[in-house]
Amino acid sequence: MASSTAVIIARDGLPAAQDKRTERQRFEEVWNVLRDDVLADFRGRGMPQDAVEWYARNIDHNTSGGKRLRGLLVVESVKILRERILSDSEFFQAAILGWCVELLQAWLLVADDVMDHSATRRGKPCWYKMQGVNLIAINDAFMLESAIYFLLKKYFRQESYYVDLLELFQDITYETEMGQLLDLLTATENSDKVDLSKFSFEGYRRIAIYKSAFFTIHLPVALAMAMCRISVTDESLQILRDLSCALGEYGQIQDDFLDYAGDSEHTGKVGTDIINNKCSWCIITALALATPEQRWILKENYGRKDEQRERRVREVFEELRLRERYAAYEDDAYERITRLIEAIPEEAGGVHKPGLKRDIFKVLLEKMYRRTK
Amino acid sequence: MASSTAVIIARDGLPAAQDKRTERQRFEEVWNVLRDDVLADFRGRGMPQDAVEWYARNIDHNTSGGKRLRGLLVVESVKILRERILSDSEFFQAAILGWCVELLQAWLLVADDVMDHSATRRGKPCWYKMQGVNLIAINDAFMLESAIYFLLKKYFRQESYYVDLLELFQDITYETEMGQLLDLLTATENSDKVDLSKFSFEGYRRIAIYKSAFFTIHLPVALAMAMCRISVTDESLQILRDLSCALGEYGQIQDDFLDYAGDSEHTGKVGTDIINNKCSWCIITALALATPEQRWILKENYGRKDEQRERRVREVFEELRLRERYAAYEDDAYERITRLIEAIPEEAGGVHKPGLKRDIFKVLLEKMYRRTK
Repeated sequence: MASSTAVIIARDGLPAAQDKRTERQRFEEVWNVLRDDVLADFRGRGMPQDAVEWYARNIDHNTSGGKRLRGLLVVESVKILRERILSDSEFFQAAILGWCVELLQAWLLVADDVMDHSATRRGKPCWYKMQGVNLIAINDAFMLESAIYFLLKKYFRQESYYVDLLELFQDITYETEMGQLLDLLTATENSDKVDLSKFSFEGYRRIAIYKSAFFTIHLPVALAMAMCRISVTDESLQILRDLSCALGEYGQIQDDFLDYAGDSEHTGKVGTDIINNKCSWCIITALALATPEQRWILKENYGRKDEQRERRVREVFEELRLRERYAAYEDDAYERITRLIEAIPEEAGGVHKPGLKRDIFKVLLEKMYRRTK
Repeated sequence: MASSTAVIIARDGLPAAQDKRTERQRFEEVWNVLRDDVLADFRGRGMPQDAVEWYARNIDHNTSGGKRLRGLLVVESVKILRERILSDSEFFQAAILGWCVELLQAWLLVADDVMDHSATRRGKPCWYKMQGVNLIAINDAFMLESAIYFLLKKYFRQESYYVDLLELFQDITYETEMGQLLDLLTATENSDKVDLSKFSFEGYRRIAIYKSAFFTIHLPVALAMAMCRISVTDESLQILRDLSCALGEYGQIQDDFLDYAGDSEHTGKVGTDIINNKCSWCIITALALATPEQRWILKENYGRKDEQRERRVREVFEELRLRERYAAYEDDAYERITRLIEAIPEEAGGVHKPGLKRDIFKVLLEKMYRRTK
């Protein structure tokens, strides 16, 4: 197996923990190449120095500090689908697709933060909050999106599955935007319009699935399948959709709970769901459990940009023991998803068919279970 | 030739003016079909009624009232390249591509208006200014962009040139965003940072070309060429780029002049370039002609959100006879572009090769010349 000095190849012999660390390291190293590609193209068009520096600052601020859950999921999935350690060039290709998913998340977050008036993200001020940025962040988000298609063209144009990659990104971007719209419409900003009766588990589930599940689970796994030239059958698409929905809903509930109960120093962001009137798992669960009196307190205090009112909501959440409810939900979700994973057909009548693999989702579920950021 | 009752086919026998009117009418009728496609898909996913209504309102507000210059350019170009009246299905296909360009412009304008804090567009309040919209407009812009790829997939997926269409939209969207970045960086919003020395004809030209020329001229013509399966040679690409730049710069200078001198009731928008510190043809030309005293007035008053200061800038513009300068520029540009068009090789040694046609650009230039909105 080819091995350069710069890139340490993970080998089966290494302990799992160390293997994991080097894979992440290698993934990060691929980014240096891609970042240079994007900036070299921009500079090569004769763009002035201040614009090149701006774009570099945009890229660096918004691609740093993430957990790379989605990007690494592409690499991990390719490895599991191929059933072996990847060659350098296979790793590189999978990592490019992973970074394209990371770029998708990056621009979604840049735009979301502007729309949500958020203050911090990944332990830093949000991009639009940085000196001199403000609403230029909107165009910066669009440019990060375009960098995805620039990289796909540069590295995958000659592949038979190039058009599948383009369509996957376009389709799932669209679905994510639909989810964002549902989320924004449910959380009307105008405080005299707070209407908790609009919040329902059904609406919540739809938002979670559209806004997050598809680009977080479906996209990375489907990209890996495309790269491994595994044709998508109706059955595998259905399994992928079902598991994306289940895992995505679980991940969203985790996010919502951490927005409320997470340690902001640890998560890197300050929760804004309560003051932003978000249709969060916390408020839906609380409304389902509240006494008429507690419901009245929630109604009067939720979704207002006021610290004291936010504190009143938090008090009711504590009275209703949301922390315990969450722990119970999490264990139940873990079991439910495990059963879904076990139902994936891997071998048909002793004949091995290339297709989805249980391990993709098992690894993912283990990473998500009891996460604290 | 097939002809339905709903769609009136333009025929050579009709006077030119009437022919033009019906073509535009037919183009608008195609939109009804596409709009329904987009909304039926959205509704078909089980989206709640309020989201469907929101999306419809977004689409209708932001696709109505335009001049359709870019969309009709696709149809016109296909007609000229084919050298004949189009069949119903050819017209429909060309019009879909034209509407995709119109959707591109629509989302660019939605986002631009937010970033520029504009008040009106096409004679109506800007979308983000509409009741309850505000920054949701950012996601609405993204959804209009995604509708392009939804329509391309629905209607062109089976065509050999499908991937060319996707790349054309992606590449030129990216270039347009680059132009928008250059524009935003030149016009730093912060009024204590107004620095007119940053304005130059070179920087101006780069913004005009990236921000507007490519998607206004290059994209529609290149889409028409793709649809007519005319392979792009290095020579034709260079001609297309050169003419896009020349016409795009001319169009931008027209826009800038109309932002300053246009009748807002006629143009449908109130000029904001002066108060927004925009690197406009007007201020660059004025700075090149101003006495030290006038330059000082411009420096003290340009780019401030203050009506009185805006008036002082306008006074200097009048003193410098910008209106006459503009008329002289326009006649010169017309002649220069005419010479470029005449240089397009249409026949090589008596052999007719399928390729670019002079008429595409001649028709366009005639439409642009002395426009008042």
